[in-house]
Amino acid sequence: MMNDKLMLMIPGPTPVPEAALLALAKHPIGHRTSEFSNILAEVTANLKWLHQTESDVLMLTASGTGAVEAGIINFLSPGDRVLVGCNGKFGDRWGEVAEAYGLQVEKITAEWGQPLDPAVFAQKLAADKDKQIKAVILTHSETSTGVLNDLEAIVGHVKEHGEALMILDAVTSLGAYNVPMDALGIDVIASGSQKGYMIPPGLGFVAVSAKAWEAYKTAKLPKYYLDLGKYRKSTAKNTTPFTPPVNLIVALHATLKMMREEGLESIFARHQRLTQATREAVKALNLPLFAADNCASPAITSVAPDRVDAEQIRSILKKKFDIALAGGQDHLKGKIFRIGHLGFVSDRDILSAIGALEVALRELGYEGFTPGAGVAAAARVFAS
Amino acid sequence: MMNDKLMLMIPGPTPVPEAALLALAKHPIGHRTSEFSNILAEVTANLKWLHQTESDVLMLTASGTGAVEAGIINFLSPGDRVLVGCNGKFGDRWGEVAEAYGLQVEKITAEWGQPLDPAVFAQKLAADKDKQIKAVILTHSETSTGVLNDLEAIVGHVKEHGEALMILDAVTSLGAYNVPMDALGIDVIASGSQKGYMIPPGLGFVAVSAKAWEAYKTAKLPKYYLDLGKYRKSTAKNTTPFTPPVNLIVALHATLKMMREEGLESIFARHQRLTQATREAVKALNLPLFAADNCASPAITSVAPDRVDAEQIRSILKKKFDIALAGGQDHLKGKIFRIGHLGFVSDRDILSAIGALEVALRELGYEGFTPGAGVAAAARVFAS
Repeated sequence: MMNDKLMLMIPGPTPVPEAALLALAKHPIGHRTSEFSNILAEVTANLKWLHQTESDVLMLTASGTGAVEAGIINFLSPGDRVLVGCNGKFGDRWGEVAEAYGLQVEKITAEWGQPLDPAVFAQKLAADKDKQIKAVILTHSETSTGVLNDLEAIVGHVKEHGEALMILDAVTSLGAYNVPMDALGIDVIASGSQKGYMIPPGLGFVAVSAKAWEAYKTAKLPKYYLDLGKYRKSTAKNTTPFTPPVNLIVALHATLKMMREEGLESIFARHQRLTQATREAVKALNLPLFAADNCASPAITSVAPDRVDAEQIRSILKKKFDIALAGGQDHLKGKIFRIGHLGFVSDRDILSAIGALEVALRELGYEGFTPGAGVAAAARVFAS
Repeated sequence: MMNDKLMLMIPGPTPVPEAALLALAKHPIGHRTSEFSNILAEVTANLKWLHQTESDVLMLTASGTGAVEAGIINFLSPGDRVLVGCNGKFGDRWGEVAEAYGLQVEKITAEWGQPLDPAVFAQKLAADKDKQIKAVILTHSETSTGVLNDLEAIVGHVKEHGEALMILDAVTSLGAYNVPMDALGIDVIASGSQKGYMIPPGLGFVAVSAKAWEAYKTAKLPKYYLDLGKYRKSTAKNTTPFTPPVNLIVALHATLKMMREEGLESIFARHQRLTQATREAVKALNLPLFAADNCASPAITSVAPDRVDAEQIRSILKKKFDIALAGGQDHLKGKIFRIGHLGFVSDRDILSAIGALEVALRELGYEGFTPGAGVAAAARVFAS
C-alpha cells in the first residue's frame, strides 16, 4: 500500500487542514512579543465566538483531561457535593477526578450506549433543599460510546436549582453541535484542540462564567499550574501565565479563521449531515448502531456489529484503505467500532468510509446487505 | 526589513531544526496505534539516555511549570517540610507551588544574579536530626538571571541527609550541561520541550528515581492529570494515559536522534563553548556580566549594561537584524538583557549576535569599546 495517505476517522486527533499543518511548521516566535500578543487577542476573540459567550475562554497547555480537571478543581472545595453523569469512559473519569480531590461524588449512571436520564438530575437537584450540591459535571458527547447527553434538559434543571454550577465536558461536542454557553447558562465548558478545533492535540480550553468566577473566590482545592485565575489575569493582557505551545496556537489561529468563514450554523449543519449520512448508511448495511438516533453524537458514530467482527473490520479498513477507525474502549473493546466525523471532515470522507466498509463486509463474508446499499443511503442524505 | 528571518536568542522557545519543523507539519497519526507506540518506545529510550538514567522518564502535555509541579506534588503530603532554593523568578515560583499545596516551605535565598550557597543547604540539612525535611527543590539554571546553581555540591548534602528527595528544575540545564541523574543521585528532574530538546513548547518531562517512587506510595497531595503513577503505568506499555501532543512527539523523535548523533559530550562542550565565547565577547565590549564566571548558565548569558539602555539594545537587534534577545523579568526589567544560547545554536549564531550587538552599541553612541573587540574575543574562543 502507498504510504502517507492516512485518513483519520477516530474521535481525535481529527484531520488537520493544510493551513494548520503549514502553520505548525513555522519557526516559533517569542511568546512575550507584541506579534504573539496580537495572535492571542484574535484567538481569544474567536474562542469567545465559538463558545457563544462574553465570558472568559482560557487556553492551557494540557490535553482535554487537564482542561476538564481545571474546570472542576478551580470552583470547588474539599467535601463539596457534586453530581457526576456517568455513561461512558469519560463520565467515569470525571468521577475519578472529583474523588481524587476529596469531593463528595454522587454518580448518576446509565448503561454505556444509553443517554443519561435528565429526570434523575431533576429529582436529585429538587431534593437538595439545603443547596449542598455545588456542581453538576456532565459529559456532553460521550466519546467512548457515541452518545450525546441531553444538555439542554439537564442544564435547565441545574438552573432551577440555582446554586450548583454546570460544568460541561464538551470535548467532542464543541465545534460540532450548538453549545451556546451564555444562552444556556453553562458555567464551565472544557474542550481540547484535537477535536472540533481541527489542530493536533496539546491545547486545552476552559470557558468560565461570571458565576463560576464567584465560586472561584472561595474555592479551596490546591492548584497552581491549573489555577485558572492566573490564566484569566494573563489573558486579559493578551499573554499567558506560562510558556504556551506557540506553534499550536499559530495553527489554531488559522483554523479558527476557517471556522468563522464557514460559520457556526454551517458547521453544525455539516456535522448533522455527516452524522445522519453515516447512520443511514450503517442502517442500510444492517449493522446495529450502538446509540439510538435521538441521542446520536455529532462527532462519532458507534457500530456494534453482531454477525461480523468489529476488530476485523477496523483491520481491513486500515490495511486496504488506510482509514483509521476507533475501536471500543474498556469493556467495549472488540464489541464496537467507532467512525469519527468530527472537525475537518467533508461529505466525501463519509462516502469513502462507507464504501470501504462495504468492501470489508464483503471480504468478511457478511451477507446481510445489498452491495451498494450503504453508499446509496449516504448519497440520499447528501443529495437532499 | 525582510520578513521570516527571525533568529531566536531567548531562553525558550529556542531555534527548531528543519527536521523537527517538517515533522510538526505531518498529519497526526492515531495515538493508540502500534506505529505511535514504536515512536514512544524510541523516544523513551532516548530520554533515558539524555537523563543518563535507568529510571523512568515521563512525558506530560504541559509547560515546564506543569512538569516541575508534577515533580513536587507526586512525592509529598500536606505539611511536609521542604527547602526551596530561591535566587530568581523560577526558584520563587517553586516556592509558590509548594505553598499552594500546603507544604511547609523554607526558602534558601540569594540575590538575583548570585548563586545559592551550598553551605546553607548543608547546615539546614545537618540540623534536621529528625529527618523532617522531605525534599530539597532546586532550580539548576536560573533562566531569569543566567546563574547556574551548584547542583553537585547541593545534591551531595541532600545525599548525606538521606531522607530528603532532591527535586531538580533542569528546564534550562538539561541538554546543555551534564546532569547525570543516576550518578549524582537526583530523585526528580523536570524539564520542558522548548529548551535543550530543540522543539517548540508544549511537552514537559519528569524523570523519577526509585526512591521518589517509594515516596509516591505514601504521598497524599491530590492529583489526577499530573499523577505520575498514571504516566508510569502507561509508559511501561509504550502508551500515554491521556491524548499526547502527537506532532510534538514526532518532532521530538527527530531531535532526540540528532542529539544522539551529536553525543552528550559534544553537546555539553558546544554549550560550554557558546557560553564562553558570549561571555568573552561581552567582557571585551566592557559590558558588565550579570552572573559571575563561576556560576555561568550554559543556556543564557545575562548582561547588565550600565552606560547604555538594555531595552534599546534589544530593540535595535530586533529591528535591524531580526535577532530576538530576552529582557529582564520582574524587577530586572529594563536592567538586563539576556542572550540565549541553548539548544539548536551554533558557533556562527554567536558571531552574528555579537556582531549585531556591536552595531547596536555604536548606534547608541556607546564609546566604551574598540570596534570589533567583541567579535574578536568570540573568535578567539572558537579558533582555539
